[in-house]
Amino acid sequence: MTTATPLSSTPRTRLGRAKDRARTDRSELYAVLDEGLICHLGVVRGDAPMVLPTCYGRVGDTLYLHGSTGASSLRAGARNPVCVTVTLLDGLVYARSVFHHSANYRCAVVYGVPEPVTDPSEKLRALRAIVENTTPGSWEHARRPDRKELAATSVLALDLTEASVKVRTGPPVDDDADVAAGTAWAGVVPVATTYGAPAPCPLLPPATAAPEHVRERVTPA
Amino acid sequence: MTTATPLSSTPRTRLGRAKDRARTDRSELYAVLDEGLICHLGVVRGDAPMVLPTCYGRVGDTLYLHGSTGASSLRAGARNPVCVTVTLLDGLVYARSVFHHSANYRCAVVYGVPEPVTDPSEKLRALRAIVENTTPGSWEHARRPDRKELAATSVLALDLTEASVKVRTGPPVDDDADVAAGTAWAGVVPVATTYGAPAPCPLLPPATAAPEHVRERVTPA
Repeated sequence: MTTATPLSSTPRTRLGRAKDRARTDRSELYAVLDEGLICHLGVVRGDAPMVLPTCYGRVGDTLYLHGSTGASSLRAGARNPVCVTVTLLDGLVYARSVFHHSANYRCAVVYGVPEPVTDPSEKLRALRAIVENTTPGSWEHARRPDRKELAATSVLALDLTEASVKVRTGPPVDDDADVAAGTAWAGVVPVATTYGAPAPCPLLPPATAAPEHVRERVTPA
Repeated sequence: MTTATPLSSTPRTRLGRAKDRARTDRSELYAVLDEGLICHLGVVRGDAPMVLPTCYGRVGDTLYLHGSTGASSLRAGARNPVCVTVTLLDGLVYARSVFHHSANYRCAVVYGVPEPVTDPSEKLRALRAIVENTTPGSWEHARRPDRKELAATSVLALDLTEASVKVRTGPPVDDDADVAAGTAWAGVVPVATTYGAPAPCPLLPPATAAPEHVRERVTPA
């Protein structure tokens, strides 16, 4: 149960296709964003879109993006319309017909106009959220940004007001005739993101053990 | 060695940041596209970008996208500027400073104006490429699209003329002072996409074995 505001329904976030895949609970938006590691940030340059992958972090109903102050995608996104999409691929859906092949996935799409973050304490909170979303434990473990590094980093804040979540789960949905014909296999091959054994930096003293927050990241065999 | 045309350098595909990560060999573009399963398609609607995940396939220097004839993203993309981005995440880079944390990845970005595919034989070739990129073996195994299904499917062709590939590999690059201080662990946690045991459709007769092309997909333990 959640007491948060449900996801908005605007002309952009209302699903045109496969409406049964829409989720309206804000907690499902949080879940997709918090599980994802990279988003695809879309901005408009001239009359064309530009879509680039980048890390992000969430604090409440704000999504934070960061980058070098020289990054053109961040410059293009500040105070301009953007679309941020996070996609988690969960499975490949093999149907009895090519037409009904599909994918199981969870996808969050956020629209808005990001604001540059200038307040120093919000900027630190934002960077902490980004680091902790991507590499949990690093904010405590690694050296935090100094004044020069902070000045070289742009942070954008995007409200999670206008967002949609689309989810497909479960087996293929085939035509009855294809099920009856029984000429093809059908089912789902699950897809997962896994984390392997840490490769230590060659400049570390030999036999330096990886700390717990890194070892915990590794997917159990 | 490749004899293909090198990747173009246009104002959009020339990297603004981290130029040493640019790859100019067309074979590297093919490698990223052929390993990826989903792309993020960016289109412009009104003054705002829209970024949605979708499957794709490649034939030579053409990238094919498909969708329902009712899909607004495909409609918005036909004969309009699009950006198609495929990102493969290879590792999480833990540095000694938060500032130098990074990710290892391979990312292909394609710009262009897609053309609708209307020729029936090209449409079939395109759909075959999309199916075989996502679920190899399914074009031979499953029932192929009939006339009605073909009519319900839009296919777009995007030239791979204007494209860039950006790659980061290797260990963290830390400041000398942080390496000398030796207060934090540093290294790379490899990230991989893995495929689990096939979950058969509940409507299959019990104990139906998955065919070889599906079993081959599963990541060895």
